Amino acid sequence: MTTAEIIAIGSELLTPFKTDTNSLWLTEKLNDIGIEVMLKTIVGDDGGRLEETVRDAFKRSDIVITTGGLGPTSDDITREFTAKAIGRALVYHDEIETLLRERFRGWGREMPEINKRQAYVIDGAEVLPNPHGSAVGMLFEDSGKMLVVLPGPPRENQPMFEHHVLPRLKATASEVYSARRVLKVSGMGESAVDEIAAPIYSRYSDIATSILFNKSEVEIHLAARSETAEAAAIRAAELADELAAALGKAVFSTDGESMEMVVGRLLTERGETVSTAESCTGGLVARRLTEVPGSSRYFVEGAVTYANEAKIRTLGVPAEVIGTHGAVSAECAEAMAAGMRERARTDHAVSITGVAGPDGGSEEKPVGTVFIGYSGPAGTRSIGLKLPGDRYLIRWRTSQAALDYLRRQMIK
Amino acid sequence: MTTAEIIAIGSELLTPFKTDTNSLWLTEKLNDIGIEVMLKTIVGDDGGRLEETVRDAFKRSDIVITTGGLGPTSDDITREFTAKAIGRALVYHDEIETLLRERFRGWGREMPEINKRQAYVIDGAEVLPNPHGSAVGMLFEDSGKMLVVLPGPPRENQPMFEHHVLPRLKATASEVYSARRVLKVSGMGESAVDEIAAPIYSRYSDIATSILFNKSEVEIHLAARSETAEAAAIRAAELADELAAALGKAVFSTDGESMEMVVGRLLTERGETVSTAESCTGGLVARRLTEVPGSSRYFVEGAVTYANEAKIRTLGVPAEVIGTHGAVSAECAEAMAAGMRERARTDHAVSITGVAGPDGGSEEKPVGTVFIGYSGPAGTRSIGLKLPGDRYLIRWRTSQAALDYLRRQMIK
Repeated sequence: MTTAEIIAIGSELLTPFKTDTNSLWLTEKLNDIGIEVMLKTIVGDDGGRLEETVRDAFKRSDIVITTGGLGPTSDDITREFTAKAIGRALVYHDEIETLLRERFRGWGREMPEINKRQAYVIDGAEVLPNPHGSAVGMLFEDSGKMLVVLPGPPRENQPMFEHHVLPRLKATASEVYSARRVLKVSGMGESAVDEIAAPIYSRYSDIATSILFNKSEVEIHLAARSETAEAAAIRAAELADELAAALGKAVFSTDGESMEMVVGRLLTERGETVSTAESCTGGLVARRLTEVPGSSRYFVEGAVTYANEAKIRTLGVPAEVIGTHGAVSAECAEAMAAGMRERARTDHAVSITGVAGPDGGSEEKPVGTVFIGYSGPAGTRSIGLKLPGDRYLIRWRTSQAALDYLRRQMIK
Repeated sequence: MTTAEIIAIGSELLTPFKTDTNSLWLTEKLNDIGIEVMLKTIVGDDGGRLEETVRDAFKRSDIVITTGGLGPTSDDITREFTAKAIGRALVYHDEIETLLRERFRGWGREMPEINKRQAYVIDGAEVLPNPHGSAVGMLFEDSGKMLVVLPGPPRENQPMFEHHVLPRLKATASEVYSARRVLKVSGMGESAVDEIAAPIYSRYSDIATSILFNKSEVEIHLAARSETAEAAAIRAAELADELAAALGKAVFSTDGESMEMVVGRLLTERGETVSTAESCTGGLVARRLTEVPGSSRYFVEGAVTYANEAKIRTLGVPAEVIGTHGAVSAECAEAMAAGMRERARTDHAVSITGVAGPDGGSEEKPVGTVFIGYSGPAGTRSIGLKLPGDRYLIRWRTSQAALDYLRRQMIK
């Protein structure tokens, strides 16, 4: 397997406000031709650390790509310290200076003398032209290793990588293609999923599998590699199918779709409609359902009935239900769902009432107590949950549980 | 100067889809007490590279912070390889296992055996408790160097860092204090803000100022440094006040508050209530208003009237208004706001109707056409906007514009 490292250079990338994102695009391009990114480093305008970083990376990995630090000012130190790191000198290229002078004249200006710095290139490196800026890139090869030095701005480094680096990598990279699948699981913890999944995925030693917990769902990422794109896709599908069968209904997506996309697809396929009645989630479930393009085909109406009078007025929840059981109760959730379904005349309605905190909890109904109601062709029902987390997480997890409850009613 | 490095651990952070963002928050906290971040590394579930990275970092820098890789599964290798990197063994802590078993029982489940892995701690390290998850953190000190091992989720590592690491660092850090202020500006572009702001902030050479555009608002970040915390705060306040005066009503926050917090504070101060009627934003405005703890004091009810019948049925929008002007019109927005205010009997009501795309646009009303309505004690009015972006951004920017419109009506 060919391995790569990416090094982003620039002190602004070490502030609280900005970080490297060039590497995301580069990673995608590298993965597409079967090259794995093993490490990423972000280093400032600090010669010693930059030199050490490049030197170590060039020892460890087959391909090292740097971005940034090729400007004309004195804090642009990439040329100097990448050269040092690989034990090479910098040589002055008159033809780069000539080109820069022409470029500046084209903009109606004389080239500032400071830009001469940009005519230095690592001895033995190929010069990568930059039609979109003044910094040329460099490509240096030695004993099967490659160092690629790119400018920082995406509109400069992306075309440079695409036209001058990628064809070279394709030619040398082994003929390995990769296929990715993402399974998403709702209503189970990370370790419970792994207990079922590990005996299965460990039999697929050719597929890299990782399990992640993501706010309210567990994700299983599969990356298969093979000699053809088709073979990789087939192999990934085999494992995805086997995992989906073992995990059952808890798997809501086998191709990375979000819960709202899955629910939307089910509704579209069945030609059915939905409405929502929310209290503690305050519109989050409606917002998620309508995030999906084309959701107007199935989403009719939502109510955010925060105050008790709103539940009574808009959803027709009987005042006695709230008086006897409280607004946070299975009875209220069911009355909300039934009332919303009747009001909006939809096939399905889902409702939520609960305590998202930080205030409003009691001994009997602490923060995180949530009831989800459903009303549909087969009747009205509800579930009660106790969810961990702060206000933000409780609301998010409640919205996920509500959409999942709706999904499970539909696939029953 | 005390120097720090941050190492983010997890193979998912080396994919094209995700990268480390924990380091941004950590960097801010470190900078606040005069500690500079000199290098950041992102490493996958690869023991050799992780060990090398931690070992090198611990040689180079005073403080090394790792995030992630502390879960219970076999690809969570941070415990093992940070220990190796500093030449220490792992020791099993029975009391962590006991605590984990209790925690799981509280959630009504038995602890999976796999979670026992989370009871291993670097020999000699202090255990950092994690009230928000199952992974404890670790703090190891040796000859003036510090290694801090934190879990990956921000909701776990931020309180852990704040309560258990920051006080320790403050005690050893140099005596430079910094104060930060964040001004937020709505309804102006980045360069328009800079044209007004630059002549002012350039007179404060002791304050680092940066201007950022963030989805729907321009942020002005100020970082002042001084020998006392008070002096830094006073200096930052001077510049914040001067900028706020120059930019006027467009500044909605001078202390980093979100728009929904600002609107919530205004409503609370005035003892007034609000309701919402949304079409294309699908509940996003209600969701944002109710994200703020205590919002039940002022938020009464919201309607997500996606279908035209819902606008007629729930908001009393006359069918003729929709027939004559269309659902996406100033007339419809005003009827929605007035109808919602009457229905919920609130002091203020805000409404939204528009085309979020990708479908539904026309020549006359292309994607991004949005009308925002307001109804309040002084009457009913509306504004029309044309917003750039994809569906997600149009919805977000619309929600921001609607909350800002409500804010401007209140401070009139």
